[in-house]
Amino acid sequence: MDFELREGERLDDLVRDGMRLIQRPDQFCFSLDSVLLAHFVRVRRKDRIVDLGTGTAVIPLLLTAFGAEDVVGIEKNPVMAELAERNIKGNRKEGKIRIVCGDYCEAPSLFPTGAFTSAVVNPPYREVGRGALNEKAGVASACHELTASLPDVFRAAAYLLAFGGRLTMVHRADRVGDLLAEGRAVRMEAKRLRFVYSHEGEEAVRVLCEWKYGGHPGVIVEPPLIVHEKDGSYTEEVRAIYGK
Amino acid sequence: MDFELREGERLDDLVRDGMRLIQRPDQFCFSLDSVLLAHFVRVRRKDRIVDLGTGTAVIPLLLTAFGAEDVVGIEKNPVMAELAERNIKGNRKEGKIRIVCGDYCEAPSLFPTGAFTSAVVNPPYREVGRGALNEKAGVASACHELTASLPDVFRAAAYLLAFGGRLTMVHRADRVGDLLAEGRAVRMEAKRLRFVYSHEGEEAVRVLCEWKYGGHPGVIVEPPLIVHEKDGSYTEEVRAIYGK
Repeated sequence: MDFELREGERLDDLVRDGMRLIQRPDQFCFSLDSVLLAHFVRVRRKDRIVDLGTGTAVIPLLLTAFGAEDVVGIEKNPVMAELAERNIKGNRKEGKIRIVCGDYCEAPSLFPTGAFTSAVVNPPYREVGRGALNEKAGVASACHELTASLPDVFRAAAYLLAFGGRLTMVHRADRVGDLLAEGRAVRMEAKRLRFVYSHEGEEAVRVLCEWKYGGHPGVIVEPPLIVHEKDGSYTEEVRAIYGK
Repeated sequence: MDFELREGERLDDLVRDGMRLIQRPDQFCFSLDSVLLAHFVRVRRKDRIVDLGTGTAVIPLLLTAFGAEDVVGIEKNPVMAELAERNIKGNRKEGKIRIVCGDYCEAPSLFPTGAFTSAVVNPPYREVGRGALNEKAGVASACHELTASLPDVFRAAAYLLAFGGRLTMVHRADRVGDLLAEGRAVRMEAKRLRFVYSHEGEEAVRVLCEWKYGGHPGVIVEPPLIVHEKDGSYTEEVRAIYGK
């Protein structure tokens, strides 16, 4: 497979299906969160999936390894959208993934409502005004709610999803109150939760959540996911999720 | 210690502080949930604590083992309220626990608003119309939301607590969406969550939750609590919580 690398870019290993990924160290680089999120998504063969703020397209690429056939990645930053295109070509996924350069906060200008059956998002994690902003503009935008707040994300998902569709997200565990309450405000009802713990015996650091648009209350809280063994290595489960 | 037993009653061991508990097998009997809840409550020495729907007074009794000095148990059923009085006398806790026979859904007829700094509740678990009703009237009332719905519980707590006070509850894990969203509707912001798993690798069965009345968003998700070892025995942590 051929990857066209530009100055300042690097080529990383995505492991799954032998895929590789161009990244720019001056922008947000994919992390374990993206891998856990893609693995947590329940992919149905006929799903039309949209990834909100796709960046390098890492999540659409991983989703194809889990059976996704039709994924759209929306990316606001044209530099990243172009990079995402090269990642899709390099991994020969043009038949399954399409990039749309645009702002998902203005979803009605991009797609008709109900165009998708599944939405996926690894949103900005911190509220503006909390925590130091990263000096790199691209990283600041991906880590803080500069470009999209949580209500923006829910509104976009509710617009883009057909009734009964699923939204899947990874977020900071301490935001779970916002996730469940603000989701419900747009008729997104949490159906599956999984908390991610860096080490056994510590507080959760992340939460994986699946909502059903128009669903009834009632959520399954899955077994805890522990990332590291005491010696710092990945647990067996996380190694299996990585596909190693 | 002397316990005055009536016909059809039995005397059980509460373990902590050598306390014992009269129960009626035809009514709701205390379970691990009550023990986990009492242990999860953060008791401050000067707290004025109210237990909503106290039954046998099991939770107030356990709270005194964790340092509580001033607990009121509200109980609607006069038969249970009288039994609770005997449990308090039998365990010599008259100086620390008081029973009020009344309906916490009508809290304004019982106490001025803001009378407590901490509220504790092991509420009815199922919504009316879901699951078979238990034939025993007392058990049905304790297991189904016949006498109080979740919004009733939150309204009562918000009335009885001073601003900044804490509400602590145990509930079914699948209701966590309702717990966080309906709590927020009365300015109860979840601050601590702990999920309870019957066995490792299974879905959570219970959630322990602490809210702060008027608190800011942001919740600590504590390490998972596993109840049973593979062989069915209690885990070391649960044995420690029981005080065995």
